[in-house]
Amino acid sequence: MGGMMHHFTPTLRTRNTPFTDRVQAAGVRGYTVYNRMKLATYFRSVQEDYAHLKSAVQVWDVSAERQVEIAGPDAERLIQMTTPRNLAKMAEDQCYYIPNVGVDGLMLNDPVLNKIAPDRYWVSLADSDMLLYYKGLAAGLNLNVKIFEPDVHPLAIQGPKSEELVRRVWGDAAASIKFFRHTTVDFQGIPMILARSGWSCQGGFELYVVGWENGAKIWDILMEAGADLDVHAGCPNGIERIEGGLLSFGSDMTMENSPFEAGLGKYCHDTPNCLGHAALQELNPPHRQIRPVEIPGEPVAACAKQWEIYSKSGSYAGTMRSAAYSPDFQTNVCIGMIEDTFWDAGTELVVKTPEGTRGAIVKGSFWL
Amino acid sequence: MGGMMHHFTPTLRTRNTPFTDRVQAAGVRGYTVYNRMKLATYFRSVQEDYAHLKSAVQVWDVSAERQVEIAGPDAERLIQMTTPRNLAKMAEDQCYYIPNVGVDGLMLNDPVLNKIAPDRYWVSLADSDMLLYYKGLAAGLNLNVKIFEPDVHPLAIQGPKSEELVRRVWGDAAASIKFFRHTTVDFQGIPMILARSGWSCQGGFELYVVGWENGAKIWDILMEAGADLDVHAGCPNGIERIEGGLLSFGSDMTMENSPFEAGLGKYCHDTPNCLGHAALQELNPPHRQIRPVEIPGEPVAACAKQWEIYSKSGSYAGTMRSAAYSPDFQTNVCIGMIEDTFWDAGTELVVKTPEGTRGAIVKGSFWL
Repeated sequence: MGGMMHHFTPTLRTRNTPFTDRVQAAGVRGYTVYNRMKLATYFRSVQEDYAHLKSAVQVWDVSAERQVEIAGPDAERLIQMTTPRNLAKMAEDQCYYIPNVGVDGLMLNDPVLNKIAPDRYWVSLADSDMLLYYKGLAAGLNLNVKIFEPDVHPLAIQGPKSEELVRRVWGDAAASIKFFRHTTVDFQGIPMILARSGWSCQGGFELYVVGWENGAKIWDILMEAGADLDVHAGCPNGIERIEGGLLSFGSDMTMENSPFEAGLGKYCHDTPNCLGHAALQELNPPHRQIRPVEIPGEPVAACAKQWEIYSKSGSYAGTMRSAAYSPDFQTNVCIGMIEDTFWDAGTELVVKTPEGTRGAIVKGSFWL
Repeated sequence: MGGMMHHFTPTLRTRNTPFTDRVQAAGVRGYTVYNRMKLATYFRSVQEDYAHLKSAVQVWDVSAERQVEIAGPDAERLIQMTTPRNLAKMAEDQCYYIPNVGVDGLMLNDPVLNKIAPDRYWVSLADSDMLLYYKGLAAGLNLNVKIFEPDVHPLAIQGPKSEELVRRVWGDAAASIKFFRHTTVDFQGIPMILARSGWSCQGGFELYVVGWENGAKIWDILMEAGADLDVHAGCPNGIERIEGGLLSFGSDMTMENSPFEAGLGKYCHDTPNCLGHAALQELNPPHRQIRPVEIPGEPVAACAKQWEIYSKSGSYAGTMRSAAYSPDFQTNVCIGMIEDTFWDAGTELVVKTPEGTRGAIVKGSFWL
């Protein structure tokens, strides 16, 4: 936005969370809106938060990962219609990252699906009202399911000391669950789901807080238990998530992209019950795809609009979707949607940033 | 938010519009996010913008009223399934305000529907991805429709001098269209829809700009043509819209409310093809409903969370959803969702604001 600072105007429409008062007391400075809900963007500074996330432990209000509960005899059938990932073998303690696609095979969301019971799922949404797609589809097919936002609000515990913090509060068993598995922990007699997951690469958990009124209490317990671990309020970090290749739906890929373009081909199984099944066959292989891209040298501004990317000989090569200067790698870490002719690791490219043309190089892997 | 100012962090996910560069050059200071897109909240100050809106003419980037095009033989059928308002007699130059409801009769959105041709509609959305509901429902029923976001971006021209500005740019015929009717105007050979509509009570129009690349050009033409009318960049005004009783979906009413609770019963016709038809019969009459409420005296803060409302004897009477101090009426103008026992005009109430308890009174009508 050209370096200008703009004020975020809060309203009821950009919803509060059970943790909003705590987040504000902790000194939040930046906000975005995600699923029509407030989501913090930084506390001390994006850079300070980044260094702290990599060395200590943070508690993140990620209620904006809005939950959709889908329950009833047709629950699995409905969800399978919206994703090419095969759900048949999903265990009851499993979390699945699922691209959601429409009939045309293009993406609608990329949530994490938590199986709670055989006929009961929570979908932890990226930023689009997938609730409405599920409701529309279920109405059209007259499915036997209930679809609603339950009174459940994810709180992430992220960072290298997250395991120690979880151990102190919920014990060894909880702290030793495997990646993308979940267990049940107790809070004052209320069972709650704790998963090893979260939108950082520093290790961590997500607690699905049941009951709005419990939010502040759990926040306070975590802060108290982690005081000597230097626990601090945090939020998804715009630098670290690019280093780790964690995609942001709406930025890195949109409703105009296929899962293949988003690099999610490994989740596209042969699932004829997915409504996008036929279309997906036509969309594979993709002609452009997400790639880690480096812009060496001085820091670039954030990617407030897509930057066009060209080959060294001037051919169109794609668009940059996310960019940040990495203090640890001393370079600009970026995510681009790159045309197939230019997507091989090592390809040198030219990026048109608002502050001038910069050289770039396609990387073979993300930084973390 | 307790008076604290927070920085709005822009990303690609919170989408730019064709007018974003112009809005920023015009000195926008506050932002919100609406339909995953940037929407300005004030330029000079909310109060200055308010006085100017009531005396001159403003150009508003309301691209965030995202457009959904529904085209094909089943278009009317699909839309009718989602609204109780009878579409049978809608003329081709008409705009309809339509509550959207689900099978349960509860609201999903409250868009303005523009009929473009017999089998072609644009839905101008309030803040939820109604696009996804339409897509899900059409997929479930295998309807013969195309549903997509067209390359169309509404630009509002609002204020008492809006008619003069429209006359200068598009002539007498365009400037004399009736309320909630639309006509076609020409921009460099491209036909565009101009409607007499908009989210203020100061008179005005909405131009549905076709083609992203035309946005800045049209903005500049309006600014040049209106220079001596004191035209200025503006945006929906948080004070004026409450004075006028223009509801904000997500604040004043949500997906938990029926159209009756939102005071939209007059749009609930006997339309059996609406999927919510049966449920709506059960939801009428409502036991709570939107009311204009006045809090006399000193200015209150904005309604950053719902404020509970009680009767003078201490019974629960509802919640306040929106509040602003009105410079013109020298009082706090508010919108509450009030229980039936207390919703009669003249009823005295007690409101628990974050800064203390205040007296309030139910009004018989909005201020404008």
